[in-house]
Amino acid sequence: MIQKLISSIQKTGAPVVVGLDPMLSYIPESVQRQAFAEYGETLAGAAEAIWQFNKAIVDAVYDLIPAVKPQIAMYEQFGVEGLIAYEKTVRYCQDKGLVVIGDIKRGDIGSTSAAYAAGHIGKVTVGSQTFAPFHEDFITVNPYLGTDGIKPFADVCRQEKKGLFILVKTSNPSSGEFQDRLIDGRPLYEWVGEKVAAWGADCMGDDYSYIGAVVGATYPEMGKVLRKIMPKSYILVPGYGAQGGTAKDLAPYFNEDGLGAIVNSSRGIIAAWKQEKYSRFGAEHFADASRQAVVDMVEDIRTIL
Amino acid sequence: MIQKLISSIQKTGAPVVVGLDPMLSYIPESVQRQAFAEYGETLAGAAEAIWQFNKAIVDAVYDLIPAVKPQIAMYEQFGVEGLIAYEKTVRYCQDKGLVVIGDIKRGDIGSTSAAYAAGHIGKVTVGSQTFAPFHEDFITVNPYLGTDGIKPFADVCRQEKKGLFILVKTSNPSSGEFQDRLIDGRPLYEWVGEKVAAWGADCMGDDYSYIGAVVGATYPEMGKVLRKIMPKSYILVPGYGAQGGTAKDLAPYFNEDGLGAIVNSSRGIIAAWKQEKYSRFGAEHFADASRQAVVDMVEDIRTIL
Repeated sequence: MIQKLISSIQKTGAPVVVGLDPMLSYIPESVQRQAFAEYGETLAGAAEAIWQFNKAIVDAVYDLIPAVKPQIAMYEQFGVEGLIAYEKTVRYCQDKGLVVIGDIKRGDIGSTSAAYAAGHIGKVTVGSQTFAPFHEDFITVNPYLGTDGIKPFADVCRQEKKGLFILVKTSNPSSGEFQDRLIDGRPLYEWVGEKVAAWGADCMGDDYSYIGAVVGATYPEMGKVLRKIMPKSYILVPGYGAQGGTAKDLAPYFNEDGLGAIVNSSRGIIAAWKQEKYSRFGAEHFADASRQAVVDMVEDIRTIL
Repeated sequence: MIQKLISSIQKTGAPVVVGLDPMLSYIPESVQRQAFAEYGETLAGAAEAIWQFNKAIVDAVYDLIPAVKPQIAMYEQFGVEGLIAYEKTVRYCQDKGLVVIGDIKRGDIGSTSAAYAAGHIGKVTVGSQTFAPFHEDFITVNPYLGTDGIKPFADVCRQEKKGLFILVKTSNPSSGEFQDRLIDGRPLYEWVGEKVAAWGADCMGDDYSYIGAVVGATYPEMGKVLRKIMPKSYILVPGYGAQGGTAKDLAPYFNEDGLGAIVNSSRGIIAAWKQEKYSRFGAEHFADASRQAVVDMVEDIRTIL
C-alpha cells in the first residue's frame, strides 16, 4: 500500500491528504436539514448528514489528491450510526481510487492490539468465513505501550500489505509535556522515532517502509531531526493551515527525492466555505470551495519541493 | 460515579472488576453454534455469540462485583455489529447496577478528544436532540499527547459525573521501552503519575478523584511509588492472574483505608471454564465456572486487605 500511496503522490504531484473530520458545524444547514428530514434529528440523521457532506467533498477533490484521512472520533461520537458512515466513507474513497488513512490512534497490547489490527486493516474469522470490517489502508497508532503494542499491527501490515503511521511528535501545544522530555540528553520523541525506524526496517516497500510516523507541522526543527532519524519512514504531517503550520515549515519533512512526507489539512479544506477567502462560493457550493482550497494548498506546498 | 464505584466496592467487599474481553475462542461451541444458526457465520453472528456469552456471565457474577471492564477492541474487531454488542453489554451491565469501565484507550487532541468524550461518557447534540451513544461510566485514556488530550475528557467528566483511568504504567513486558526511561532521574511513568494527580485535583469526589490511573499488577515496586505520587487517584490494576500478577503483588496499590485500587481479571474469569482448575463445570456451565473464579479471586484479594 505504501507503493500505491507513493505512486498516487507522484501521479497527482500532490503530497497532500484531506482530513475528513466532519463536525456538524462544518456541514451546511441545507445538507443537515435534508438528512434530518429523512432520518429525524437522530444519530442516524447526523450520520446521514456527515455521509452526504463527505461524498460531495470527495466527488469534488478525488482527482487532485492521493489520500484522505477520516478521523474516526468524529464518527464514533455518533455511536454505531456514525461508524456506519465511517465505513461507508472508507469504501467510497477506496472506490474512487484514494488511499484511506484511518486516523484511529489505537494502541493496546498483545491480543487487544491484534483485535484492533484485525478489525481495521486485517481480517476477522467467524466460523468458516472471513471479513474485513473497517478495511482502511493505513491507520495511526499510539506508541506509549512499546513494541508489544506495535508488533500485532506490524504483523497484520506484512500479511495484508497495509501500513501504519505511529505518533512520534504530535502537533498540539502540550505535546511537549511528555514527548519533549530529555532522556539521556535526547527528547522522548527522538527515542520513539528510533523505534519507528527499527520497526519499519522489517516492513520495507521498494524505497520506503510501510511503517511511517506522525510528526506535526508545528515543530519544523524537530521534523528536521526526525527526518534524519527515520529516513525510510513516510511522515504524515498534521497541523498545516488551521493549526498554524506553513509551507515553509514543511520543507524539512521531505527527503531529497521530494518524497517521504504527506501533509494533512482537515478544517482548512472541508470547512473552506466558512472562510472569508472562499466565501464567494457560498454554503450551497461548499464542495467547490473545498476543491479550490485543495488547489491552493497543493500550489503552496509545491513551492518548497 | 467515583462515589458509586467506592460504595459498590464497600458493599460487595470486592475491589474487583471483571474484564469482558470476549475472544470467540473463549465462547463455548454451543453458544457460537446457536448464534450462527440464527445470524449465519457473519459479523452479526459473532456479535450475537459475544452478547449471549457476556449476558450469561454477567447474570452469574453481577451480585459479587462492583464493576465490569469491557475491552472495546474485542467488539470493534467485528465492526459495527460488534459495537452494537458492546453498547448492549454496557447497558445490560448498568441495568444490573454495575459500574462500567470502557477500556477504550482513546487519546487525541482538542476537538477530537472532545468528540471521543462526547460519544463515550458525554452527550452529542443533533439539532434539538441529545444522545449518549456509548454511555460508559468510566473510560481509559492514553496520556501521550499531554494536557490537550486529557482536558476535553476531564471537562466532560465534571459535567456528567463520569470518570477516567489514564494509562500510567501498563502491565505488558515492553511497557518499559518508553514508560521506564529516566527523565531528570525519574522514570517517565512517575512524571505521568504526577500529571494524573494534578489533573485529578480538579476533579475530586469526597475522598478520591474521578480521574484515576492504570498501573499494571506486574510491577508492584512501581505501584508502591505511584500510590504515593497519586494518593487521591483510584488505580485500575490489570495483569492479575493470566498476566502473572498475584494477590501479594497487589498490596502496594491500596491505601491504608483499604481503598484506592480495583483489580481487573479478564481471561481468568470469563474463560475460567477452559482452565483445568474449573474443568469440572464443563463448557455448558461456563458461567458458573466464571462465578466460582470470581469467588476465588475475591477471597485471594481479601487476604491482603
